[in-house]
Amino acid sequence: MRLGELARAIGVAFDGEDGEIEGIGTLKHATAKQLSFLENPKYLKDLAATKAAAVLVSPKYADAVPEGTVALVDEEPYLKLAMASAFFAPEPMRSEGKEPAIGEGSVVAEGVAFGKDVTVGRNVTIMPGCYIGDDVTIGDGTLIHPNVTIYHGCTIGARCIIHAGTVIGSDGYGFAHTKEGKHVKLHQLGNVVVEDDVEIGANCAIDRGTIDSTVIKEGAKLDNLVHVAHNCEIGEYSLITGQVGLSGSTKLGRNVVMGGQSGTAGHLEIGPFATIAARGGVTKSIEGGRVYAGFPLMEHKKWLRLNAMLSRLLEKKN
Amino acid sequence: MRLGELARAIGVAFDGEDGEIEGIGTLKHATAKQLSFLENPKYLKDLAATKAAAVLVSPKYADAVPEGTVALVDEEPYLKLAMASAFFAPEPMRSEGKEPAIGEGSVVAEGVAFGKDVTVGRNVTIMPGCYIGDDVTIGDGTLIHPNVTIYHGCTIGARCIIHAGTVIGSDGYGFAHTKEGKHVKLHQLGNVVVEDDVEIGANCAIDRGTIDSTVIKEGAKLDNLVHVAHNCEIGEYSLITGQVGLSGSTKLGRNVVMGGQSGTAGHLEIGPFATIAARGGVTKSIEGGRVYAGFPLMEHKKWLRLNAMLSRLLEKKN
Amino acid sequence: MRLGELARAIGVAFDGEDGEIEGIGTLKHATAKQLSFLENPKYLKDLAATKAAAVLVSPKYADAVPEGTVALVDEEPYLKLAMASAFFAPEPMRSEGKEPAIGEGSVVAEGVAFGKDVTVGRNVTIMPGCYIGDDVTIGDGTLIHPNVTIYHGCTIGARCIIHAGTVIGSDGYGFAHTKEGKHVKLHQLGNVVVEDDVEIGANCAIDRGTIDSTVIKEGAKLDNLVHVAHNCEIGEYSLITGQVGLSGSTKLGRNVVMGGQSGTAGHLEIGPFATIAARGGVTKSIEGGRVYAGFPLMEHKKWLRLNAMLSRLLEKKN
Repeated sequence: MRLGELARAIGVAFDGEDGEIEGIGTLKHATAKQLSFLENPKYLKDLAATKAAAVLVSPKYADAVPEGTVALVDEEPYLKLAMASAFFAPEPMRSEGKEPAIGEGSVVAEGVAFGKDVTVGRNVTIMPGCYIGDDVTIGDGTLIHPNVTIYHGCTIGARCIIHAGTVIGSDGYGFAHTKEGKHVKLHQLGNVVVEDDVEIGANCAIDRGTIDSTVIKEGAKLDNLVHVAHNCEIGEYSLITGQVGLSGSTKLGRNVVMGGQSGTAGHLEIGPFATIAARGGVTKSIEGGRVYAGFPLMEHKKWLRLNAMLSRLLEKKN
Repeated sequence: MRLGELARAIGVAFDGEDGEIEGIGTLKHATAKQLSFLENPKYLKDLAATKAAAVLVSPKYADAVPEGTVALVDEEPYLKLAMASAFFAPEPMRSEGKEPAIGEGSVVAEGVAFGKDVTVGRNVTIMPGCYIGDDVTIGDGTLIHPNVTIYHGCTIGARCIIHAGTVIGSDGYGFAHTKEGKHVKLHQLGNVVVEDDVEIGANCAIDRGTIDSTVIKEGAKLDNLVHVAHNCEIGEYSLITGQVGLSGSTKLGRNVVMGGQSGTAGHLEIGPFATIAARGGVTKSIEGGRVYAGFPLMEHKKWLRLNAMLSRLLEKKN
Repeated sequence: MRLGELARAIGVAFDGEDGEIEGIGTLKHATAKQLSFLENPKYLKDLAATKAAAVLVSPKYADAVPEGTVALVDEEPYLKLAMASAFFAPEPMRSEGKEPAIGEGSVVAEGVAFGKDVTVGRNVTIMPGCYIGDDVTIGDGTLIHPNVTIYHGCTIGARCIIHAGTVIGSDGYGFAHTKEGKHVKLHQLGNVVVEDDVEIGANCAIDRGTIDSTVIKEGAKLDNLVHVAHNCEIGEYSLITGQVGLSGSTKLGRNVVMGGQSGTAGHLEIGPFATIAARGGVTKSIEGGRVYAGFPLMEHKKWLRLNAMLSRLLEKKN
C-alpha cells in the first residue's frame, strides 16, 4: 500500500515523499518500508534513530522526526495507528499457500485443521480438534493435546507440551479510544514465540504481540487457566501456576515463580529468581532473588508482619 | 404440557383451571401460557400485575396471586420451579430443522458443526472447530476464531470478533437446594445476546440467562478468561480486562472499565463510566463516573490512603 | 521394564533383586510390581509397611526400607522419580484397542474423536468437537457439551453435565527441580474420577492425579473457569463457583461452598459444610460448618470486624 493512500485512508495530512508501506514497526525496529508511531514520550529517544518510512506523531513532536522519515502529524496518533493497522492485518485464513509439511515420525490426528505454510517437526503429536494456523512452526518432539488453537505466525519449540483447550496467539487487548468513548481495534500484528521444553497447562490464553513477539522462554512451565497478555516475556525456567494473569508488556527474568492467582500490572519487570506468593499483585518493577506477597506487593516478610499486626489490632479493639 | 400434568409431575397440589403451558417466565414478562414463580419478596409488586397462567408461591403469598392466575402453592416454590424447568429445556441437539443459512461472502471452515435453523450473515468467517448451536444468529462481518462454542438460541451481532476457545451461552450456575443438601438444576432457558462491534477474548465463558437474556452491549470489549454469569448486562463500550468475573444479574452501565482479576458480587449495578481498578471486588451497587479499588471496594483514593496508613502503622510497630 | 534397567536409565545404583516393574505407586498403595518413593518424611510411617518392589529414598532413610523391598538410594529421589515416571506414561493416543462401545439411546455427534477402549453408557449425548481419550468411561444419561476434552483413563459418572471447553484429566503441575534450576516433568499417571450427578461449567480445567485419582464426588457442582489441581478431592454436593482455584491435594468435605474467585493452598482439608466467601484464600486446614473470608483466611465475622476497624482507623487518621 502506498503511504499517500494510507494517509488518506486514515485521514492524516500527507505531503512527504510517497512510497510503498508493507507494515508497522516500533520506532526501534521499523524498516524503511514500515510505518511507525510515537505514543509514549519515553520512546522519544528512539525517534531520532528510526529508519521508519513514516511516523505518526502529535504536533508537539513533529519537529523531532528525523530527516528521511515522513512525519504524519495528528492530534490522535495512536487512534490513527489503530486505523492504519487494519490495512496490515492478514486475512484470518489464507486461501493460498502450501499444505503442511509434517516431519518424520509425527502423528497428526484425523480432523486436525491446518492453515497454509505450516511446518511441523519430527515426532510431533497433534491430537484431535486442534487448529494450527497459517505459517505456524512446531519443533521436534512436541505434544499438542486436543482442542488447542495456535493462531497464524506463532512458533512452538521442540519438546513442548501444550494441554487441551489452550489458545496461543489470540489478539492482545489493544484499542485506541475515540473522544466519544468508542474503541478502535489496534490489529495485533506480532506473534507468540514459545521456546523449547516449555509446558503450558489447560485452557490458558497467550496473546500475540502487538507488533513484535510475546515470548515464553526455554523450560518455562505454565499451569492451567493462565492469562499472558501481549508483549510479555516469561524468562527461562519460570514457574507460572494456576490462574496467574500477566498484564501487557511485563517481563519476567529467568526462574521467576508466580503463585496461584497472582498477577501483575503491565509494563514492568520482575527480576530473575523472584518469587511471588499466591495472590500477590505486582504493581511495579521488582528486584529478583526475593520473595514477595500481598496486594499491593511487598516483601513476604513484611506481609506476614502486616497480617500479624492487623490481628493484634483487631483483638485489642474488641 | 398441561398445567395439571406439570403440577402433578412436580408434586404440587392443583385445583385451578387447566391449560397448556409452553414455558417459564418472570412475573413481569410471563405470557398467559407460561408458568411463573415468586421467590424473592422484592418481586411481590410484580405479582399483582402478572399475566402468567400459574405462579409457584409459598403459602404466605398465595392470597396475593391475582385472579385469572393459578396459585401453585408449595413450601419450596423455587425447588418446584427447578423441577418444572426440566420440562421446558430443549434437547441439546435438535434433530429436526433447517440447515444453516449462510450469507454471501461468508467463509465457513470445513468441520464447523452447526445445529438447526442457524442464520449466518454476510462476510462472516467461522474458523475450524467451532460449534454453532440451534437457532443461533450471527451478524454481518463477524469473525469467529477456532474452537468457539455458541450454545443454542444465542445471537451475535455484526462486526464482532470472538477469540478461540470462548464459550457463549453455557448454562448459568442455577440450582435449588433440597433440605438434604442436594442441588436440583434450574434449567437455564434464556440466551446470550451479543450486540454489534463486540470483541471477546480467548477462553471466556458467558452464561445464558436463566429465563431472559445475558446481554453484552454494543462496542464492549472483553479480554481473555472472563467469566460472565447468567443475566448480566454489560453496557455499551465497557472494557472488561483479563480474568474478570461477574456474578449473576450484575448490570454495568456504558463505558465501565474493570481492571484485571477484578470481580463483582451478584444482583448489583455499576454506574456508567465507573472504573474498577485491578483486583477490585465490587460488593454493592456503585455510582458511575468514579474510580474504585480494593476488596471490599472503596474509592481508589481511599484505597491508596488505606495502604499508606497500613505502611506507616507497620513501620511504627516495628 | 526390569528394575535393574530402570535404575540404570535414571542413574541410580542398584544391587538388589531384579524383577519386572509395571508402574509407580505411593508407599501405601504400591504393588509388588511397582516402584515407590519417599519424598516427604511425613510418609515415613508408610515406608515400613510398603509392598513396593523398590523405593527411591535419600541416604538418610535407606535403612528404613523394609526387607523384600529394594532401596534405590539417591541424593535426589524425587528427581529420579520424575525421570522414572517417563517410562510409565502411556503414549498420548494408543494405536491399538477397541473402538468405543456406545450404549443404547446415546447420541454422538459427527466428528467427535474417540481414543481406544472407550465405554459410553446409555442415553449419553456427546456434542461436536469433543475428544474422549483412551479407556475413558462415561455413565448413563450424561451430557457432554461441545469441545470438551477428556484425557485417557478418566471416568465420568451418570447424569453428569459437562459444559463446553472444559478439560478433564490434563496433567497436574508436577516437576522435580534440578540444581541448575531446570524442571523435570513428573509424568502424571493418575486419572480423574467424576462421580454421578456432577455438573461442571465451561472452560474449567481438572487435572488428573499424580499417581492416584483427582475425585469430584457425587452431586458436586462447579461453575465456569474453575481450576482443580492434581489429587484434589471435592466432597459430595459441594458448590464451587466461578474462577475458584484449588491447589494440589486439597480435600473438601461434603457440601463445602466456595465463593467466586476464592482459592486454596495445597495439601489441606476443608471440613464439611464450610463456606468460603468470595475471594477467600484458604491457607491451612479449616473446620467445617463455619463461614470464612479474607486472605489470609479468617472467620467471616472477624473479616467484617477487620474491615470496619480499618475504615474507622482511616477516618481517624485523616
